[in-house]
Amino acid sequence: MAIGVIATITVRDGKNAEFEELFTALTEQVLANEPGATFYALHRTKSDSQVYKVLEQYASKEALKAHGQTEYFLAASQKMGALVAAAPELEVLDAV
Amino acid sequence: MAIGVIATITVRDGKNAEFEELFTALTEQVLANEPGATFYALHRTKSDSQVYKVLEQYASKEALKAHGQTEYFLAASQKMGALVAAAPELEVLDAV
Repeated sequence: MAIGVIATITVRDGKNAEFEELFTALTEQVLANEPGATFYALHRTKSDSQVYKVLEQYASKEALKAHGQTEYFLAASQKMGALVAAAPELEVLDAV
Repeated sequence: MAIGVIATITVRDGKNAEFEELFTALTEQVLANEPGATFYALHRTKSDSQVYKVLEQYASKEALKAHGQTEYFLAASQKMGALVAAAPELEVLDAV
């Protein structure tokens, strides 16, 4: 069963461009290397310029787990630490 | 610029199976007829068995508008009226 994820990320003031560049590069790596990542896309919210939402879907729990263990995801997460105001909030969903 | 949508739908008690069947048929029609709908997937939330979230993305504002005007979407929305506890909550997002 496919798994959906909504990741809500709050970026520090002044770090938007750097964050978007980092996350865009990460997205390209995810889509190029993870056939199990069926959707992965960063979005700006309209309510708050510092708040972003990543809409994601994975073909299985295993694909989601593998995603979180990739070298490029771990490297991006480390760099993201200096750009975000708090740890991302993750809502995991079960695809129908 | 692509547009993301998170649609939160609360289903009446006892109407889950009927809702899921209706929405699955709608999803098939969307994906078969709308090249501008780049992602469209229904998910159950883990927090409340009556609350669902549809993760959506459209290639443009025009694609989103066209989606809402299709005959099958309007027909499904009408049938959904008897199955949901309230109007869907829509969060529209701007893809990066």
